[in-house]
Amino acid sequence: MSQALTFAVPKGRILDEALPVMARAGVVPEAGFHDKDNRALSFACENADMRIIRVRAFDVATFVAHGAAQAGIVGSDVVEEFDYPELYAPVDLDIGHCRLSVAEPRDSGLEPLGKISHLRIATKYPSLTRRYFERQGIQAECVKLNGAMELAPSLGLSQRIVDLVSTGRTLAENGLVETTVLMPVSARLIVNRAAMKTDPRVAALVEAFRGQG
Amino acid sequence: MSQALTFAVPKGRILDEALPVMARAGVVPEAGFHDKDNRALSFACENADMRIIRVRAFDVATFVAHGAAQAGIVGSDVVEEFDYPELYAPVDLDIGHCRLSVAEPRDSGLEPLGKISHLRIATKYPSLTRRYFERQGIQAECVKLNGAMELAPSLGLSQRIVDLVSTGRTLAENGLVETTVLMPVSARLIVNRAAMKTDPRVAALVEAFRGQG
Repeated sequence: MSQALTFAVPKGRILDEALPVMARAGVVPEAGFHDKDNRALSFACENADMRIIRVRAFDVATFVAHGAAQAGIVGSDVVEEFDYPELYAPVDLDIGHCRLSVAEPRDSGLEPLGKISHLRIATKYPSLTRRYFERQGIQAECVKLNGAMELAPSLGLSQRIVDLVSTGRTLAENGLVETTVLMPVSARLIVNRAAMKTDPRVAALVEAFRGQG
Repeated sequence: MSQALTFAVPKGRILDEALPVMARAGVVPEAGFHDKDNRALSFACENADMRIIRVRAFDVATFVAHGAAQAGIVGSDVVEEFDYPELYAPVDLDIGHCRLSVAEPRDSGLEPLGKISHLRIATKYPSLTRRYFERQGIQAECVKLNGAMELAPSLGLSQRIVDLVSTGRTLAENGLVETTVLMPVSARLIVNRAAMKTDPRVAALVEAFRGQG
């Protein structure tokens, strides 16, 4: 018998919405997965042929791109940031909706983006951000932060940030306003391209997720 | 009056040990800092001339290196990973002790490090790891993970990992053994070099932390 498939899911924001979608596609983790004190990273599934790992969103993409997991769920922000050739994102799961946007201090008096050739930005997404502005002829100097982007303007790290925006509440609390949407974001089913070609279970999984959209 | 100094502290592991050390040096956050439901990132201090920001460990180094915070506390692992020239780590606080080590599966049968010229490693510390092995004439191909390094060997991402080790319990739970210590780790007071030269309050802060070691 071949090895169990590994399905990677992200901690946090997307997971609550993802579990019912996974269940409809036949991916159901063991009960211990829902125990908040459980430190385990890897879980059995009702389907004995599969296990689930729960890791950070960026690591979901890394595990799948390297074939250490064959499939997973992650936001399109993360898919775009890495731009891994080995990673294929065939199904938009229509959950985890938000957007990736530029924000700046309210009444900043900053020149509009159309009038500048260089800017400095604090973001968790330096690669995606650089590519986005390059296409507009703007050189973006990115300071990579792992969180707390909204602190950057008031501390003088950068006047602008690129961050996920959902309700806009966090921005408002920090005196920031959204000025430009880089991309709308939603969660995707992702698979490893090589695994998709060589393992029929991966192709079947894609069909199962497609069928219940 | 000049702007308040910003002091950056990391979420998590080190913070409980750091608070008494900070208090002895006169850095005491407002009561709200200890409220676990508080989503704020920035806090007032008993000393009105200072504020505290609470961010991820890697971001502590980034804020201080760019002068957005003038000082902070972070593990020597993070100081070494970034190797920012603008970041000065003058005081070993003698807290947050652990070590950064190579680990591999128990009974892996892997060739010892002295006998190989190339290896693949999953780690949160790709820069530090590459430099460490370069000095030994070994080319380290690093896969950057943000967590869950200990999953990498069993999923075939990499046979070896480089990770923080404290008690060794997490390694043992994942069937891994520590084989080589890259560096001992402890928490450091870090300051921005330019701020240290131009703002006497930063030099005074260094002395306050030095004096109570």
